[in-house]
Amino acid sequence: MNPVVIRTRKRPAVAAVADLRELGVSTTHEAMGRGGLMKPYMRPIYAGAQIAGGAVTVLAQPGDNWMIHVAIEQVQPGDVLVVACTTDNTDGMFGDLLATSLKARGGVGLVIDAGVRDVRVLTEMGFPVWSRAISAKGTVKATLGAVNVPVVCAGALVHPGDAIVADDDGVVVVPRLEAETVAAAGRKREASEEDKRRRLASGELGLDMYAMREGLAKAGLVYRDDD
Amino acid sequence: MNPVVIRTRKRPAVAAVADLRELGVSTTHEAMGRGGLMKPYMRPIYAGAQIAGGAVTVLAQPGDNWMIHVAIEQVQPGDVLVVACTTDNTDGMFGDLLATSLKARGGVGLVIDAGVRDVRVLTEMGFPVWSRAISAKGTVKATLGAVNVPVVCAGALVHPGDAIVADDDGVVVVPRLEAETVAAAGRKREASEEDKRRRLASGELGLDMYAMREGLAKAGLVYRDDD
Amino acid sequence: MNPVVIRTRKRPAVAAVADLRELGVSTTHEAMGRGGLMKPYMRPIYAGAQIAGGAVTVLAQPGDNWMIHVAIEQVQPGDVLVVACTTDNTDGMFGDLLATSLKARGGVGLVIDAGVRDVRVLTEMGFPVWSRAISAKGTVKATLGAVNVPVVCAGALVHPGDAIVADDDGVVVVPRLEAETVAAAGRKREASEEDKRRRLASGELGLDMYAMREGLAKAGLVYRDDD
Amino acid sequence: MNPVVIRTRKRPAVAAVADLRELGVSTTHEAMGRGGLMKPYMRPIYAGAQIAGGAVTVLAQPGDNWMIHVAIEQVQPGDVLVVACTTDNTDGMFGDLLATSLKARGGVGLVIDAGVRDVRVLTEMGFPVWSRAISAKGTVKATLGAVNVPVVCAGALVHPGDAIVADDDGVVVVPRLEAETVAAAGRKREASEEDKRRRLASGELGLDMYAMREGLAKAGLVYRDDD
Amino acid sequence: MNPVVIRTRKRPAVAAVADLRELGVSTTHEAMGRGGLMKPYMRPIYAGAQIAGGAVTVLAQPGDNWMIHVAIEQVQPGDVLVVACTTDNTDGMFGDLLATSLKARGGVGLVIDAGVRDVRVLTEMGFPVWSRAISAKGTVKATLGAVNVPVVCAGALVHPGDAIVADDDGVVVVPRLEAETVAAAGRKREASEEDKRRRLASGELGLDMYAMREGLAKAGLVYRDDD
Amino acid sequence: MNPVVIRTRKRPAVAAVADLRELGVSTTHEAMGRGGLMKPYMRPIYAGAQIAGGAVTVLAQPGDNWMIHVAIEQVQPGDVLVVACTTDNTDGMFGDLLATSLKARGGVGLVIDAGVRDVRVLTEMGFPVWSRAISAKGTVKATLGAVNVPVVCAGALVHPGDAIVADDDGVVVVPRLEAETVAAAGRKREASEEDKRRRLASGELGLDMYAMREGLAKAGLVYRDDD
Repeated sequence: MNPVVIRTRKRPAVAAVADLRELGVSTTHEAMGRGGLMKPYMRPIYAGAQIAGGAVTVLAQPGDNWMIHVAIEQVQPGDVLVVACTTDNTDGMFGDLLATSLKARGGVGLVIDAGVRDVRVLTEMGFPVWSRAISAKGTVKATLGAVNVPVVCAGALVHPGDAIVADDDGVVVVPRLEAETVAAAGRKREASEEDKRRRLASGELGLDMYAMREGLAKAGLVYRDDD
Repeated sequence: MNPVVIRTRKRPAVAAVADLRELGVSTTHEAMGRGGLMKPYMRPIYAGAQIAGGAVTVLAQPGDNWMIHVAIEQVQPGDVLVVACTTDNTDGMFGDLLATSLKARGGVGLVIDAGVRDVRVLTEMGFPVWSRAISAKGTVKATLGAVNVPVVCAGALVHPGDAIVADDDGVVVVPRLEAETVAAAGRKREASEEDKRRRLASGELGLDMYAMREGLAKAGLVYRDDD
Repeated sequence: MNPVVIRTRKRPAVAAVADLRELGVSTTHEAMGRGGLMKPYMRPIYAGAQIAGGAVTVLAQPGDNWMIHVAIEQVQPGDVLVVACTTDNTDGMFGDLLATSLKARGGVGLVIDAGVRDVRVLTEMGFPVWSRAISAKGTVKATLGAVNVPVVCAGALVHPGDAIVADDDGVVVVPRLEAETVAAAGRKREASEEDKRRRLASGELGLDMYAMREGLAKAGLVYRDDD
Repeated sequence: MNPVVIRTRKRPAVAAVADLRELGVSTTHEAMGRGGLMKPYMRPIYAGAQIAGGAVTVLAQPGDNWMIHVAIEQVQPGDVLVVACTTDNTDGMFGDLLATSLKARGGVGLVIDAGVRDVRVLTEMGFPVWSRAISAKGTVKATLGAVNVPVVCAGALVHPGDAIVADDDGVVVVPRLEAETVAAAGRKREASEEDKRRRLASGELGLDMYAMREGLAKAGLVYRDDD
Repeated sequence: MNPVVIRTRKRPAVAAVADLRELGVSTTHEAMGRGGLMKPYMRPIYAGAQIAGGAVTVLAQPGDNWMIHVAIEQVQPGDVLVVACTTDNTDGMFGDLLATSLKARGGVGLVIDAGVRDVRVLTEMGFPVWSRAISAKGTVKATLGAVNVPVVCAGALVHPGDAIVADDDGVVVVPRLEAETVAAAGRKREASEEDKRRRLASGELGLDMYAMREGLAKAGLVYRDDD
Repeated sequence: MNPVVIRTRKRPAVAAVADLRELGVSTTHEAMGRGGLMKPYMRPIYAGAQIAGGAVTVLAQPGDNWMIHVAIEQVQPGDVLVVACTTDNTDGMFGDLLATSLKARGGVGLVIDAGVRDVRVLTEMGFPVWSRAISAKGTVKATLGAVNVPVVCAGALVHPGDAIVADDDGVVVVPRLEAETVAAAGRKREASEEDKRRRLASGELGLDMYAMREGLAKAGLVYRDDD
């Protein structure tokens, strides 16, 4: 790993980001053809947050948050900080001081494949974090990593400038240049869901609405009465 | 596995179900002689829900929710949908559209040994789910499973028509024909607990209330003062 | 293991405990030179609780809560009950009856490297618990353990009378005789953080505030513009 | 749970068991329509063992092997002892003394959803064990369980007298009355595999041998040359 | 995800691959500046295998090995098949028939972030596999994935044509165009280790050989005699 | 944590260590009254090793093996190096160079609550290691820890100079001053087991040999014939 900070202006299209934020994680993931998800162990520290923004990426050493300090300087308003770790780690690499700084720079949230602490204060601040763990474990500032290089975070590949969408369902990564296409596909999907929701609420079965009966029968599904 | 749907009218006794719902999971489990529990990784998506109902069971393939669509047709008012998977899986097999449909059929909740998504909407709908994971991961509709066959869900055997009780403490399965006996035993247990609670609150020790001192001494427990 | 109950009057200094409670887990852990933490799988059953107190320790067998009944007699007002288990276990060893009794004795909370149940009632009672799991699984009262012996709980060594601090960030153990020193160091740390928070909120970078740039450059960090 | 020992003569057909042993776990599982498998965390203590036999089932408490002693009396030559636990547990419930006794009764192996110890001696004895863990942790003999009741072991339902097949690929359970049908289906499957193996070894592609190309194209698979 | 198969001739340089195979995983990983490793849950099915080759990548659905059949056609002599899954899965996606076919095509091994079966036969064949699990669980052939697209496998990014090195220490991925540089750096590292090994074997301390004492003292390390 | 190295001559009695080595982990653990075990995730890198020795303890940072270099200087012939980590970590902190050095100093084995690498070479050297993981992940030498302080390693408390016993069943810690008593109790236990083994091998039941029938009946065990 080269100890490098890439200064970059790459950001996803602003309107697409706004749309993705509204669509949320599940719809965005579907609109991408079911890709881009981080592993489900990534959980929000409080319920109800829903964000989207451009990724500033960090590759950190286990138990070492030096590069997060470095990365905050690269954050522009609307960005999401995405921290990957060179190895599985749950230490509390990020707390209320870093959140204060990240927020002051315009960062809208943190996604970290490690631990976070001061979660009560972060919740009071309304600063959303998705993490692998909550842990008070303090970190050192001893070894370099990298900022704005491609990273694998919680099983998903993230390039700097990709759009990150996060809500109660998890975290999804949209490649920067696909953000507008995905947002458009998501809006279309959502429109069609509204109608489906009404029909299902009125008691229509998915079996009929999606015309599944023939396919099920062809696949060999048998109905039998209980003896 | 036979790809089969069993149409069945088996349901636990309505009054027993109402009682079990009120007793909750821990008391029901004790009233069964400490049986019937699903593994503790099954967690509610929001706190405070407390349900009971007859099980409609589903055996699904990993990452495939075709059979959930099939199962919803078999749901009657008051039922709980119980989804087991042929292998460990955390994909988001169930979301707000399926919940809308299941609710319209009278289903009172979902217990799924896999993932669930759209949890913010499900929470707003007040539709309770107990699951192994929260995940936006979308699923396919490609391979058959079975509906209303006996399944092992989160380590517990569930027959269609068994009573399912679920609350913040987890999920417990009561065999259909034992529902009334268990409910009666649970009510009796609860009555006796009320008195115990008062005595303990007044400062009486469990050691005395349960007359444990003799048994402890006989087992060899020694008291010693700190040096 | 000797089946023994040590009667002890060892408690951490009252004023230090009050300070530690206010400082919380992360600050206390830092003030100890980054020690004393339990593993991050120890989670509170509800958000927002913040406690500190002297440890009454229990070593229990898996699935057996006999010694918790024994231990409650040894609890004095302000104490925290700390339950370790001879092997990994998630059974619901503690519920609302034990909580009623522990509270009546003046206990301020429970830390248990196993499961807890009746969590809705415990939440309504405002009785805080940090545990490895939530589980309705009932326990037996068949095998002795020990009370007020040193235990390893969730990876941390706890002596009876040590100060236990617990909040949303986890649980930390402060050796009894170090409680005052740690509290003093924590207060000092917190004072310095207040100033840092203001500076970071105003947009000053941690890189500058902590004077990190020279160290980073010396370690070999390179800045590069995106192509 | 009723503390009961069922004395039973139910055993799977001897010839079917011999066939299943030869077919091994993967083929048996396929021949059942892909059912009956225990979770993959069940691993043999040494490589190369391959057994089949009728199940004598045990339901044990965590950290308590009393019922294993009870169960051994119920073992007949050719049986496999299957131990489930009322809760997740890794304690070393079985060691060389129990193995000596079980072997003397004609038992051909142990399947235990908990821990095992003395694995070096067990290996020297050639007594095969499939377990969730290896652990020296000693157990008590304090609380009853049950013998020869249906149990859920490592996610699979086992009735006393079911055929258990275990090898390096894991453990599979064949319902007693299906043993002969499954053995026949397995032998048929194996015969057809021999021919496939030869064709594949000679370089024929599975795509052609299984005539998959049309299905893949119909499902939308696209071939593209690398740029 | 696009259901696509990329036909590609990209392979890492043959001589570099031969060198990497000899250097093994740990040295290769160090020579890359400590990058490229898959997670340590990837384990060989038998000890002692040591391979290197160009990656043919597969992205498969959970419990579905259709795309592995497709991928084998793309394998050229010396290649390693690398199978990622769209979600965590342990099913036995690969067994002795597929191994026979893969071997016939010249494939030198399999790296799969899922399960494998028929491990006794694979061991007898000397066909090495690194996997997340061993499981007999059978799979379906129902849903498309992709072949020779970039995948994240066990936490590491793999492009088709990257060099894969695997041995008892795990699996490492070397970007195709860096294979020669890394091999050269690895050989250099190994040469220097030979001399170190001799000095350490003769009793020289690493503290002296690496001249660490000054750095340790400067960092504040204190030596004290035991009381 | 104080960055300190304690120079100590504390070692367990040589004859006791020799006895404990022969008794092995399970018998030693029983002879201690079932205490002292590390968690069962600690596994040997190869089967058949059996060691005992005095502990030289290390507390290391995650991903940092600087203190292992420091600790080796403190090792005397017959010692076992015991490495704990300030947080859960699986990095390959120890490999063949360190093993060469440790062996040259007379160290008889390594117990590490983290990862190890070069396992093929370590196996060829016959240098036994018990670890949480096998991983090629390289480490830095950047942050101090401590040597010969009490540590919690894999859930067990270890003081420098305690006797460590490790074999295929795991790792157990015997407090230094109890080593002789435990060894004596172990020898006694082993003698009595020899006789039991003979009786069980001849077909006598544990139920009779241990006179369990009365206790079982009193506890309420019921025998019933299968219907």
